Amino acid sequence: MTRQSIAVMVSGRGTNLAAILEAANKGHCPVDVRVVISNKVDAPALQIARDAGVDTILFIDPKKYPNRSSYDQACVEVIQKHACHWVVLAGYMRILSSLFVSHFEHRLINIHPALLPSFAGADGVGDALSYGVKFSGCTVHLVSEQVDEGAILAQAVVPVMNDDTVESLHQRIHQKEYELYPETLRCLVEKGFRLDGRRVIWNS
Amino acid sequence: MTRQSIAVMVSGRGTNLAAILEAANKGHCPVDVRVVISNKVDAPALQIARDAGVDTILFIDPKKYPNRSSYDQACVEVIQKHACHWVVLAGYMRILSSLFVSHFEHRLINIHPALLPSFAGADGVGDALSYGVKFSGCTVHLVSEQVDEGAILAQAVVPVMNDDTVESLHQRIHQKEYELYPETLRCLVEKGFRLDGRRVIWNS
Repeated sequence: MTRQSIAVMVSGRGTNLAAILEAANKGHCPVDVRVVISNKVDAPALQIARDAGVDTILFIDPKKYPNRSSYDQACVEVIQKHACHWVVLAGYMRILSSLFVSHFEHRLINIHPALLPSFAGADGVGDALSYGVKFSGCTVHLVSEQVDEGAILAQAVVPVMNDDTVESLHQRIHQKEYELYPETLRCLVEKGFRLDGRRVIWNS
Repeated sequence: MTRQSIAVMVSGRGTNLAAILEAANKGHCPVDVRVVISNKVDAPALQIARDAGVDTILFIDPKKYPNRSSYDQACVEVIQKHACHWVVLAGYMRILSSLFVSHFEHRLINIHPALLPSFAGADGVGDALSYGVKFSGCTVHLVSEQVDEGAILAQAVVPVMNDDTVESLHQRIHQKEYELYPETLRCLVEKGFRLDGRRVIWNS
């Protein structure tokens, strides 16, 4: 199976980027991380990309662009230039323009630390904990115009314990993310899917 | 451990009632189903109650009461007379009055065929399927004034398959319900819980 090239967009620690790089390196995930783009100059994710020997690592400074669309257009051009088939958001803390989302329709994915559609938004872990659910998890989904609303590619479940704090629950969910995100990329490359309404039906 | 008396309210097939009766009979669930109330004269659940030898089996006819509160008051009186500690809704398809809900605060429970807070409402299974989640399940919760909104006592998870129909998914969820509902009753009787906000923390 040929590897497919991906771009990963980051703003922070880059732990999901690290998990994808490691899975690819071990042969568990047939992708080639060709581009890493950060909107934050000091994102630790940039160092992770350097350590892994990613070819193209860019901090693209939002301050240098007059608006969201022009910034996103610059990102699109980098991703296109390097012929990345998939665009993977990994802790990218910036709202995407319609231009960007529609350009990469069905090729742009994100991960959210809750079982969507429950607990969309910025504090999926804290919201789940205070609501009192007994299970939470993480969701890999196609990115659509509305936040955390795109078709669901994959989910994984974790229990919520009596004595959980936001930190302990987040930690448990993160561990699942590090398995689920590379595994979902593997399915995207090796199987592909079709949409039935908003249901993602994986090819066998 | 002493058994606690429960009342079960039904409108339909009574499969959850049957599961509770069976678990109680086998000693897995320390409850005594003392009262079964139906708002439907032809609910198959009534026959299940008869076959199991439940003492007090009542069809209470909504048409004979001028309003919801007077109907619910009649139900409260039956349940009180038989000293039932828990009131268990098992496919009871009638909206409860505030009178009823507040009377049995923290002693009134229901089960919903989805992982609440996702897919509350009348078609939890169909809504989950068409949304495209990869896991669904069932939720036992305290009943509050708003439908499917009370504090969560227990949940169980099932996968959603590529080829699921509403029927096949419902069947898988039902099987979990038949385990989860008696098991939750067992915990209520044997352990008890406290509320931290809306989180249910089981006593150990």
